[in-house]
Amino acid sequence: MAMSQVGLRYLGNSAFEILTENGLRLYIDPHIQGNQLCPVSLDDLLPADLILVSHGAKDHVSDAPELAKKFQCPVVCDPGVGYYLKTLGIPESQIINMVWGQLRKFRELKIRALESKHVSFLREGPFPITGLPLSFIITTESGFKIYHSGDTSIFTDLRLFGRLYRPDVGLILVGNYPGALAELSPQEAALAVKWLGLRWAIPMHYEQGSPEPQQFTRAVKRYSPKTKALRMDPGDWQYFKVRKSPGQGQKPTGKGGRGKRGHRAEIA
Amino acid sequence: MAMSQVGLRYLGNSAFEILTENGLRLYIDPHIQGNQLCPVSLDDLLPADLILVSHGAKDHVSDAPELAKKFQCPVVCDPGVGYYLKTLGIPESQIINMVWGQLRKFRELKIRALESKHVSFLREGPFPITGLPLSFIITTESGFKIYHSGDTSIFTDLRLFGRLYRPDVGLILVGNYPGALAELSPQEAALAVKWLGLRWAIPMHYEQGSPEPQQFTRAVKRYSPKTKALRMDPGDWQYFKVRKSPGQGQKPTGKGGRGKRGHRAEIA
Amino acid sequence: MAMSQVGLRYLGNSAFEILTENGLRLYIDPHIQGNQLCPVSLDDLLPADLILVSHGAKDHVSDAPELAKKFQCPVVCDPGVGYYLKTLGIPESQIINMVWGQLRKFRELKIRALESKHVSFLREGPFPITGLPLSFIITTESGFKIYHSGDTSIFTDLRLFGRLYRPDVGLILVGNYPGALAELSPQEAALAVKWLGLRWAIPMHYEQGSPEPQQFTRAVKRYSPKTKALRMDPGDWQYFKVRKSPGQGQKPTGKGGRGKRGHRAEIA
Repeated sequence: MAMSQVGLRYLGNSAFEILTENGLRLYIDPHIQGNQLCPVSLDDLLPADLILVSHGAKDHVSDAPELAKKFQCPVVCDPGVGYYLKTLGIPESQIINMVWGQLRKFRELKIRALESKHVSFLREGPFPITGLPLSFIITTESGFKIYHSGDTSIFTDLRLFGRLYRPDVGLILVGNYPGALAELSPQEAALAVKWLGLRWAIPMHYEQGSPEPQQFTRAVKRYSPKTKALRMDPGDWQYFKVRKSPGQGQKPTGKGGRGKRGHRAEIA
Repeated sequence: MAMSQVGLRYLGNSAFEILTENGLRLYIDPHIQGNQLCPVSLDDLLPADLILVSHGAKDHVSDAPELAKKFQCPVVCDPGVGYYLKTLGIPESQIINMVWGQLRKFRELKIRALESKHVSFLREGPFPITGLPLSFIITTESGFKIYHSGDTSIFTDLRLFGRLYRPDVGLILVGNYPGALAELSPQEAALAVKWLGLRWAIPMHYEQGSPEPQQFTRAVKRYSPKTKALRMDPGDWQYFKVRKSPGQGQKPTGKGGRGKRGHRAEIA
Repeated sequence: MAMSQVGLRYLGNSAFEILTENGLRLYIDPHIQGNQLCPVSLDDLLPADLILVSHGAKDHVSDAPELAKKFQCPVVCDPGVGYYLKTLGIPESQIINMVWGQLRKFRELKIRALESKHVSFLREGPFPITGLPLSFIITTESGFKIYHSGDTSIFTDLRLFGRLYRPDVGLILVGNYPGALAELSPQEAALAVKWLGLRWAIPMHYEQGSPEPQQFTRAVKRYSPKTKALRMDPGDWQYFKVRKSPGQGQKPTGKGGRGKRGHRAEIA
């Protein structure tokens, strides 16, 4: 059976690079500059096809405006972040506003925006810009589904989302951005993982040297034993085998090297 | 037993006219101008006693300011839309701000505002105005309860609302405004119908020629077989028989003609 | 066994003074001036260690800015209220922004911010400031947990909060601020009490002479018979015995006198 793979690279904080089986490159919450855990610089990033921003906060919007200008690619975000991007000169044609429940096709991908229990609040300009905090499910060409929690506290409708949308792998916050407070403890994050029905769960949004990823791994074993927690160090790639015919299950293919550049040719 | 009737006219998108058994006329989300599915013009509308706006969005606020000025009637809306209406010169005495959970008497009617999972976001002025997206339950003089979903994605507390407030008929979004994306699929809408425990469900918020109302009807049959889905073409009136003593059940009396004007005298 | 006590004084509306077993004094939603039910004046208030504001609304932010300036103490609030306080000249060092799910230590206390189903909306300045409405759980030095609902409508995740965080006593809105509408009926408030698993529940946020506190007491007996509803008149102190070793249960010690000043020496 023809197999292919989806690659995920962790960039520290809530930032991930996704390389789909057909070669599309996405960045989520691209916090590169000023991110103590990010092993790469802006110049190291390869051109993106799409950028996603979960909500209006410095460590999530971050370098999205600069990358959107550099790569001239669309940015998926809530209306508040969209408004903000426009004030920074990003053309409206590049701004894709989404709200909870919507499903949008992007080339062969599908992007679903869902609720996260947080705030989208930007205070950089002359007036505050409030919006709607998002989580995402990105469905790749073959049907592999990647959930990104954004920032969220625990809530029961995660169970509904698990049943309705069946994500495969989840990128789940387990701690806090340096200097801030966690919205979800490692134990609550494990409960979220159980409710979402994830096969694999990758902790994110923690400080350097934090015990939270390990606490998360233990809690996932306890609360959601069918899920495999995958700890990723910043810079690591994690690959998932996907069948070329969609919807028939996937398995992880193991970590790749910590290359500074994630050329698709390097993926084993 | 003395009977009377409540009339609902669908005006396309999420716009409805309600004519209560005692002759009060309400408009909800009155999107008349620029609404491809609306069969009437502003001049055709009879004087309103009350206007309701579910949230701040162009296709829901729409003609509410103009109608409020013309008819000098109150507008029920969230604080964000209320702020916006004030900037347009609507007197504060006409603006009735409501938030989730509140129940307000209006003459012999009751208006309950409930959560909808969406955003209230207006970007027309010098700064964005964010508020609180609403759904409504309107209880007529005899106790007949009309739920209007506003824009919403699926969420479990709809089940709580069904149990606590027991709406009779629901006006439920099943698709999208032209050029936008749906927040609720026809299948999710049918799940909402089940959770709300509706007797009758009327699909709204779809494009001309969309298959979504039919998909909704099929999904309601499957997920909520006790509910009758009533497809309304824009301009149609649907009547519900209500007993003059409140709270004793109602039944639909069938469609009226597609008259451009919904004089109460025309109701059969 | 060494015992100590936590004191709560009701100041009308949603305003409470808390005096912890180790002598820390907190004010929540300090609506003093213009609060028809508040028996004290601003000058009567003893210096606070911390002020908490649940959301942006006149009757909840109220005198928090003036007290923050007077006592130079921190204010815990959502980012919207925090932004507003800054515009009033409160130093940023005094503003502690919190969002849902976060747990913050303050000296020997813990402050948890949780969702409330409402709006944080301030319209006093040149543009509206929207934020994130909060409820709080304050854990005192010995582990006694006080829940303050803020303004909220009914929602199912209160059950989740009850299971995860196990508050002991709840300060629960049961009615409305004069001139406004209730977001939670006494019956819904009793359902909230049940879901939160409270041992004691104190009604708040009602008009002078309102029947709602009594309706609440009856509804708590019916829906949550294990909970004791404690009606407090404005100015009353209610004390809770707490063990000096944390987490081993508490019991109320009865009402104190209605002294205008709540010196700790007067307690018992």
